[in-house]
Amino acid sequence: MAVLSALSVNGDRLMGWIDRLAKIGRLANGDICRLAFTAEDVQARYLVQQWMMEAGMTVRTDAGGNIIGTYAGLREAPALATGSHIDTVPSGGAYDGVLGVLAGIEVVRTLHENHLRLQHPLEVIVFTDEESSMVGARSMAGVVPRSPTELKLREGLAIESSLETLGGNWDTIGTAQRTHDHIAAFVELHVEQGAVLEHVGKAVGVVQGIVGMRRSKITILGQANHAGTTPMDLRQDALVAAAQVVLAVREIALGMPGSPVATVGSLTVLPNAANIVPGTVDLTVDMRDLSQACIDTMQERLERELRAIATATDTQISSEPLLNVAPSPATPQVQAAITQVCQHLGLSHYEMPSRAGHDAMEMGYITDMGMIFVPSQSGLSHSGHEYTAPKQCIQGANVLLHTIFRLDEIYS
Amino acid sequence: MAVLSALSVNGDRLMGWIDRLAKIGRLANGDICRLAFTAEDVQARYLVQQWMMEAGMTVRTDAGGNIIGTYAGLREAPALATGSHIDTVPSGGAYDGVLGVLAGIEVVRTLHENHLRLQHPLEVIVFTDEESSMVGARSMAGVVPRSPTELKLREGLAIESSLETLGGNWDTIGTAQRTHDHIAAFVELHVEQGAVLEHVGKAVGVVQGIVGMRRSKITILGQANHAGTTPMDLRQDALVAAAQVVLAVREIALGMPGSPVATVGSLTVLPNAANIVPGTVDLTVDMRDLSQACIDTMQERLERELRAIATATDTQISSEPLLNVAPSPATPQVQAAITQVCQHLGLSHYEMPSRAGHDAMEMGYITDMGMIFVPSQSGLSHSGHEYTAPKQCIQGANVLLHTIFRLDEIYS
Repeated sequence: MAVLSALSVNGDRLMGWIDRLAKIGRLANGDICRLAFTAEDVQARYLVQQWMMEAGMTVRTDAGGNIIGTYAGLREAPALATGSHIDTVPSGGAYDGVLGVLAGIEVVRTLHENHLRLQHPLEVIVFTDEESSMVGARSMAGVVPRSPTELKLREGLAIESSLETLGGNWDTIGTAQRTHDHIAAFVELHVEQGAVLEHVGKAVGVVQGIVGMRRSKITILGQANHAGTTPMDLRQDALVAAAQVVLAVREIALGMPGSPVATVGSLTVLPNAANIVPGTVDLTVDMRDLSQACIDTMQERLERELRAIATATDTQISSEPLLNVAPSPATPQVQAAITQVCQHLGLSHYEMPSRAGHDAMEMGYITDMGMIFVPSQSGLSHSGHEYTAPKQCIQGANVLLHTIFRLDEIYS
Repeated sequence: MAVLSALSVNGDRLMGWIDRLAKIGRLANGDICRLAFTAEDVQARYLVQQWMMEAGMTVRTDAGGNIIGTYAGLREAPALATGSHIDTVPSGGAYDGVLGVLAGIEVVRTLHENHLRLQHPLEVIVFTDEESSMVGARSMAGVVPRSPTELKLREGLAIESSLETLGGNWDTIGTAQRTHDHIAAFVELHVEQGAVLEHVGKAVGVVQGIVGMRRSKITILGQANHAGTTPMDLRQDALVAAAQVVLAVREIALGMPGSPVATVGSLTVLPNAANIVPGTVDLTVDMRDLSQACIDTMQERLERELRAIATATDTQISSEPLLNVAPSPATPQVQAAITQVCQHLGLSHYEMPSRAGHDAMEMGYITDMGMIFVPSQSGLSHSGHEYTAPKQCIQGANVLLHTIFRLDEIYS
C-alpha cells in the first residue's frame, strides 16, 4: 500500500470525459436527456467503448446490453469489478452514473499508463437502462422478470428490439448472469444524489448498503357528499382519513431507530371539488431502510394505523403492495477497505446508507459489494443543476483506485 | 285559519307534474340533465308556463329571464311570492327546485279551483340558472355582477345570448330588480338536500336562514425532493403541511358553537409521484354558517393555524379568497308562520339552517324571507337517486299553502 499510495488518477482527463459525455443529449435548458436505448445512449456507449479500448481493455457486450471492459490480471481469478450507467432520466444531470463509469475507465487507464496490473482481472461495466428497467444489472444478477410489464420498461418500448439496439439479446438474456465465481467483488462510485455529505461536511460517503423499499397503494373509500348540507358528525370524509394517514406515515418513520424514510408522494382526491366532501382518496406510501426488520416493523405499524383511522373516520381503507425490494447490505470488508483508503488518503468520510437504487444493489445479490459516494451540491439530482465539483469527483476516483488495490490484496 | 285548515292541494296532480317534468332531460342512467339556457330548459319552462296559465295566473318574463306568474289579489298591495328553479346540474334529480315551483303553481291552482283570492297578489317565480350563475335571483335582488367572469356562467356561454334564449335581456337587466315595496314576503319550498330531517325523524324543516360561505384557495410551497435520499428532518413536505391544514379545518368547525361546517374538498399535489417528496399542494377551504361572526372567527383561526403550520413544516402557505357570501337569515315572523302551520297541520318540524344556496338567499337581501324543507332520502341530491316520497312532497305543498294564508293575514 505504501508504494501505491502515491498513485493518483489524471483528474483533468476524467473531467474532460465527463464534459464530453454531457454534450450528448444536452437540452436547451441545460438538462441532459440521454434515455436508454436511444440514439444518444448509443452515441455515448460508442464513445465510452473507445475510451475503454484506449485504456487497454478488451470490450464485449453481454445479452443484457451491458458493456464489459476487461483489463487482464496477472492471475486466472475471479474479476474485481466496478462501473455504473450512462443513461439518464428525461431531465438528468452530468454526474449521475457517468462518474462511476468514467472513473472506472480512468482507474484502468492510470494502471495501464503506469504499466501496472492487478492480480485479478479488473472489469468496468456499463449497465443497461439503470434509470428505468435496470435490465442490465438485473440480467447480470439473474433476476430479470420474464414478463415485460414487470420489467417497467419505458412506455412504448419493446424489450426485444430495445436490447437488440444495444447489441443485447432478450432470447439469450440468461447468459448475462454472473456469480461470485466470476466476480469476487463489485464496487461502484456514484454521486450521493442527496444532501447528507454536504450537511455533515464530509468528502466521501462509505455506503453501508442500499436501502430496501416497500411501496403500497392505499385506497380510502368514504362517501362523497354536499359540503354545505352534510353535518360534520355525519361525514365519511376520505380526505380527513387520508390526512391522518399522511401524518401517521411521517410519525412511523420518525419513531423508528436509525433513520428510515417514509413518504406519501402521490395523493389523488375524488371528486375533488371545493363544495363536495371527498368520497375517495388514493395515495402511495413509500418506506425505505437498510434493515428489512425496520421496514417490516414500519409496515406492521402502518397497517395498525390504517385500521384505527378507518374506524375513527368511518371509512374503508384498503392497501395493495406495489413494490417490495429487499435491502442490499454492503459487504463489511469492502466497506472497511473504503474506510481505510479514505484514512490513508486523508479524506474525511461518513458511513451512510444509499437511499436511492443503484446497479450495485443488484450486484450485491450475487457478490461482495460496496459503494463510494461523493457529495451532490444541495442534494440536487435528476436535474441539469446536478453538480459535484471536479475536486470531489477526482477524490472519488482516487478512492476507487486505491480501494481496488486493497480489494486486490484482500481477495488474493 | 279555522275554515281554511280543511283546504289542501291536489297531491296526485302535483306528483304528476313532477313526473312529467322529470322526463325532460332524463339520461339513460336516470340522472336528469336540464341545464339552464338549453333546449331542455326552454321545453320545461314552456310546460310550466302552461300550468301557470291553467291555474289562473298571468305570466310574464323579466329581463333576468325569470318567469313570474301572478294570481291577482283582492287589494292593490305588494305581492306575496313563492317559487324556485327548474334547471338542474349536469346529473341532477327530479325534486331539487322543481318541487318549489310546482307546489307554488299547485297552491294557486287550489285557490283558483276553490274560487279563493288572497288580499295580496300571489306570485310564483321560476328563477333563471340557479345551479350556476343564479342570474335570475340576483337580477331580482339587484346584485348582478356586471363582469361576465364574476357571473360564473357555465363555460362557453355568453350572458347576452343566453338570456335572450329565455326571453330575458342583459342590456335592461336592471329592470328585473324588485324591492320590499313590490314583494312583501318570499317563501320557498325545497327538498333539504341533506340528511338532517331524516336523521331527526321530522316531516318539515323550518329554515332559520341560508348560511354564508367563505371559500379560499390555499397554496403550500415546500420543496420537491427525492423520497429516498431526503432525510425526514431535512424535508419541506407540502403534503405533510396540507394534511395538518385538512385536520385543522375540521377541528376549527368542531370547536365552534352551533354547527358550522368546514371542508377541504379539493386538494392537488405536485409533482404527485410515489418517489418524490411533494413540493406543492393547492387546496380549497369552504366554511359555512348562519352567523357571520362564526364565519369570521373560523377564518381568523384558520389564518392563525396556517401561520403555525407553515412554521412547523418549513413551508410557505398563502391564501386567496375565492368566495365570500353573507348569510341570509330568514325573517322571524315568516319562520313563526311556518312553525304555526306545522303545528296546525299536526306535522313534526325542526328548525335548521339551509347549508346550500337557494334563490331565497338572494330574495332575503331585499324582502322578508322564509324557507320550508322536506326530507331528502339519505340526504342524496344532485343525482338521479334524489328522492322525496309523494307524501312528503304533498305535506310540503300544504305547509306552503297554509303559510301563504298566514302571511296574507300577517302582512295585511
